[in-house]
Amino acid sequence: MELLKERIRRDGKVKGTDVLKVDSFLNHQMDIKLFAEIGREFKRRFADCQINKILTIEASGIGIACITAQYFDCPVIFAKKSQTKNIAGEVYTAKVESFTHGRVYDIIVAKEFLGHGDRVLIIDDFLANGAALMGLSKLVEDAGATLVGAGIVIEKAFQPGGDMIRARGIRLESLARVKSMNEETGVEFVD
Amino acid sequence: MELLKERIRRDGKVKGTDVLKVDSFLNHQMDIKLFAEIGREFKRRFADCQINKILTIEASGIGIACITAQYFDCPVIFAKKSQTKNIAGEVYTAKVESFTHGRVYDIIVAKEFLGHGDRVLIIDDFLANGAALMGLSKLVEDAGATLVGAGIVIEKAFQPGGDMIRARGIRLESLARVKSMNEETGVEFVD
Repeated sequence: MELLKERIRRDGKVKGTDVLKVDSFLNHQMDIKLFAEIGREFKRRFADCQINKILTIEASGIGIACITAQYFDCPVIFAKKSQTKNIAGEVYTAKVESFTHGRVYDIIVAKEFLGHGDRVLIIDDFLANGAALMGLSKLVEDAGATLVGAGIVIEKAFQPGGDMIRARGIRLESLARVKSMNEETGVEFVD
Repeated sequence: MELLKERIRRDGKVKGTDVLKVDSFLNHQMDIKLFAEIGREFKRRFADCQINKILTIEASGIGIACITAQYFDCPVIFAKKSQTKNIAGEVYTAKVESFTHGRVYDIIVAKEFLGHGDRVLIIDDFLANGAALMGLSKLVEDAGATLVGAGIVIEKAFQPGGDMIRARGIRLESLARVKSMNEETGVEFVD
């Protein structure tokens, strides 16, 4: 998606060779007009897939997922990162290892919102090691729902997540695939 | 907002006299069509306020804020609940006491995204004790920005947050104000 790549080149900030800060438009301040273009592109790529639920994970996936859901005319469910007293006992759960925060946490989705017959599109902002995406796909599997695919805004293609997900036969659509990064030369994309 | 009140009456689940679960449409599974109506109503109430930034807090405010932002044609910033290594050093910060989770946490917004000249609308899903809203309004004040007001989806009017916020002269627009709740009789609204 050229518009997105241009924006990453212009406003993304590279730290070292593996941190890409896009918090001016994607995951702290959020450019809703860009999100609309992202949603439109996900719809184009997953058109005719009969998607009836979008699944994401708190927090930075939620905005993109909600804007995208307008194009699919379906609700969004966001997996929560720990159990609160506002969630009923009946939940699907998976463990996710966060490399950014150096810890393992549980993600949960209430069983009443995901089940047989659901055709689910997972949406998230970043794919790096694939831990969150693996956790989300386990929730879909445990629910007996169909995972149609995953739509990712930025894939760090030099990290193992993308290859791992594709090797499992999950359809993965990443709108910008970063091949390498460098503080001097900036971001290089895959093709 | 009658559509919202009807939805709360139909799908909200009352636990005891103070917990209202609306996770089937508002803060776990999210009904994006309802969010569009909510955004439209916030726009109607805050029209001509020259709002150029919407501020919310992770996680459940983000979806409502993003859909609402489409009507104001402005970006959304979400305050984060703890400092991660992906946030630069320069942040505004406030302490928020969570009654739900029984702890105090820091909320932060990067200084580069909020400042003089900004006219800010705060959006959140719930208002109960007002702790999150007070923290968010402090961030706006510290940034030297103008707080135009706060748009809340559900105010628990029997808890002290709403009165406290109004007493501080902050314009508060709550789309549904819950007067009382009871497992047998359900939800009663103000007016």
